[in-house]
Amino acid sequence: MYTEIKGGITAPKGFKAAGVQAGIKKSGKHDVAVIYSTVPASVAGVCTTNTMAAAPVAVSRLAFESGIASAIVVNSGCANACTGEQGLSDANAMAQITADLLSIPKEDVLVASTGIIGVTLPMEKVTAGIKAAVAQLGPDEQDYSTLAIMTTDTFQKHCAYEFELGGVPVRIAGIAKGSGMIHPNMATMLAFITTDAAIAPALLKQALTDAVNVSFNMISVDGDTSTNDMATVLANGLAGNKKIETKNEDYAAFTKILTEVCIYLAKQIVVDGEGATKFLELNVTGAASFADAKKTAMAIAKSPLVKTAFFGEDANWGRILCAVGYSEAAADPTKISLSIGDLTIVKQGLGAPIDELELKKIMAEHDIRVVVDLGLGQAEATMWTCDFSYEYVKINGEYHT
Amino acid sequence: MYTEIKGGITAPKGFKAAGVQAGIKKSGKHDVAVIYSTVPASVAGVCTTNTMAAAPVAVSRLAFESGIASAIVVNSGCANACTGEQGLSDANAMAQITADLLSIPKEDVLVASTGIIGVTLPMEKVTAGIKAAVAQLGPDEQDYSTLAIMTTDTFQKHCAYEFELGGVPVRIAGIAKGSGMIHPNMATMLAFITTDAAIAPALLKQALTDAVNVSFNMISVDGDTSTNDMATVLANGLAGNKKIETKNEDYAAFTKILTEVCIYLAKQIVVDGEGATKFLELNVTGAASFADAKKTAMAIAKSPLVKTAFFGEDANWGRILCAVGYSEAAADPTKISLSIGDLTIVKQGLGAPIDELELKKIMAEHDIRVVVDLGLGQAEATMWTCDFSYEYVKINGEYHT
Repeated sequence: MYTEIKGGITAPKGFKAAGVQAGIKKSGKHDVAVIYSTVPASVAGVCTTNTMAAAPVAVSRLAFESGIASAIVVNSGCANACTGEQGLSDANAMAQITADLLSIPKEDVLVASTGIIGVTLPMEKVTAGIKAAVAQLGPDEQDYSTLAIMTTDTFQKHCAYEFELGGVPVRIAGIAKGSGMIHPNMATMLAFITTDAAIAPALLKQALTDAVNVSFNMISVDGDTSTNDMATVLANGLAGNKKIETKNEDYAAFTKILTEVCIYLAKQIVVDGEGATKFLELNVTGAASFADAKKTAMAIAKSPLVKTAFFGEDANWGRILCAVGYSEAAADPTKISLSIGDLTIVKQGLGAPIDELELKKIMAEHDIRVVVDLGLGQAEATMWTCDFSYEYVKINGEYHT
Repeated sequence: MYTEIKGGITAPKGFKAAGVQAGIKKSGKHDVAVIYSTVPASVAGVCTTNTMAAAPVAVSRLAFESGIASAIVVNSGCANACTGEQGLSDANAMAQITADLLSIPKEDVLVASTGIIGVTLPMEKVTAGIKAAVAQLGPDEQDYSTLAIMTTDTFQKHCAYEFELGGVPVRIAGIAKGSGMIHPNMATMLAFITTDAAIAPALLKQALTDAVNVSFNMISVDGDTSTNDMATVLANGLAGNKKIETKNEDYAAFTKILTEVCIYLAKQIVVDGEGATKFLELNVTGAASFADAKKTAMAIAKSPLVKTAFFGEDANWGRILCAVGYSEAAADPTKISLSIGDLTIVKQGLGAPIDELELKKIMAEHDIRVVVDLGLGQAEATMWTCDFSYEYVKINGEYHT
């Protein structure tokens, strides 16, 4: 049980944030943000698995290892990826400048960047931006910090909830960005979550990993896992709940809400997928294992032929079965069934008689649910993806370096 | 050494072919073909790895196992995939009808289909088509057999060469189709190769497997491996060369030419990739292993972000490095180099100073070569792919079932 609250990323006690226009983005829009906990917080993070991981990821990993942090500094407009020694030095400088201004250890500052790859940061602008952001730290009622992490996003993605742990009110909030280069294992996606819950770093790490596995790791826009991305949560304990130090009832309750936050933000990213006109929920059931269910869902979610068919509002189930077939998951053509919306389209491998008008209505909707029952076991997985439109090609063909 | 010759798929001695309009395609275009060797031939085939493999694939596999065949019957307009018992019975009927008309054993007939998945064959039309095609068997100077295997292809793909084995002139010819659902491990791709070389089935199988691994398995249009596809070669021995029964010099010479045929046809498929405006050759060098080189090339070839960037004529090397990073191949950001055309773009992980005008000229060309040097070892791989355009979305969004 939780209730939605106002206040954005600074809704939990003891958090301040600000977003400013530092001139890194050519558009002049907000591009530097600082998120700050007035007391040191437990921290956990999950980063990109890309071997070309950007410099800020390397810097943040150190903070994640210590389990304690109190600030996040982030810029958009430049990913500081594939930038070598200079990039690493710049990412460290971002942490150092923020730390000095806030009088905290450099190791307590997380760094994140998003934007164009292969270009070094304009450090003069970045430095001025960090100074301005720190000077403006406060409740961030205008949500400028969310604006400052956006790239091709068309809307801000945030949520804030209040719930109870042992009768004590606890708050959690999250912001995220991402709309292209989105795929499991942290694509060009940033998610920053704040909470005033008291929880030990090791348990926070476990809770975040579990939450990410069923949220950010289950979305795909274009199959590209990026160089920069991370999901992180700061838990500063100011709610005053009994600190979670074992996998008790409170841990379960906290993990559940954290998962809700991650799923909400992950879905928002897919809804804002570059050029997306459809939001697709893929539910694979009856798999021999979770791994098989996920592989199957992912093959469907990545298939350009499936995605263009949904764009064309065509229930081309042959393309879906074809993707199932090359997913490398165990599958039997005589046992597979498929439904779109409430309509059974395929039953045990064969096309079922369908109400064409009803199907047309379902395919015309924005939100479409596809269920693939492999008919082999009990495991299942849910993924979210979007369609491939002219607009996706336009955005990515015209987004020049 | 070989010379190009005329005569298409029937250029090698003892082969006849025909393509007819059987009315399976709504367009009324050619849709049934028969290719026939007047004497039993050695046969080898490589089929889709898709677990939803279509009925004709199951039937052809039996012929491949025996190593001997004398005819291929193929239709376009309907893939006979995901059609259950009825589909298998129809594919067997196609073989039986062809066998009866040609007075050969049913087991000597290969069956192939391409087109829409999930619909059963209109067997009355198919039967009439096979009868008409067999009646018209001859030199197929008009290349109707090539027309009859096309779906969304915009041009015919064929080649015919003459070369020598031990001083004896030998001929080889191939036709292929495919432009969407194209990815390694046999995508919606059919390739039929005829030769009058004399070669034992086991060696023919080895030669074809090696040839396919560096040709059809190294192309990607959209990452979708289809349910139906196969590459097959019939070798009837009528050239009169000393039969190849060991891995001798003749075997090497034959494999080399067979590989040339497969690479030529594979490249033609990419050139005709749905909506393609660019032909990209990806050459990955310096990899720790061939598997790593191939993984790297494939990740780049599949990336919608890379493909849309080439469509937009933008040398967005960050997206290429990003794809390298998530390819799961060993890679080191400080050792990787990249060139496009003759220009070095990235040197040891860092953007190199480039002549922007020269780069713009290269990106504006139709054929573009990208070399990624991982700087780790000696292995390399070459793949061919195309860009992602508005037209790809249009073709696949509007190709209704």
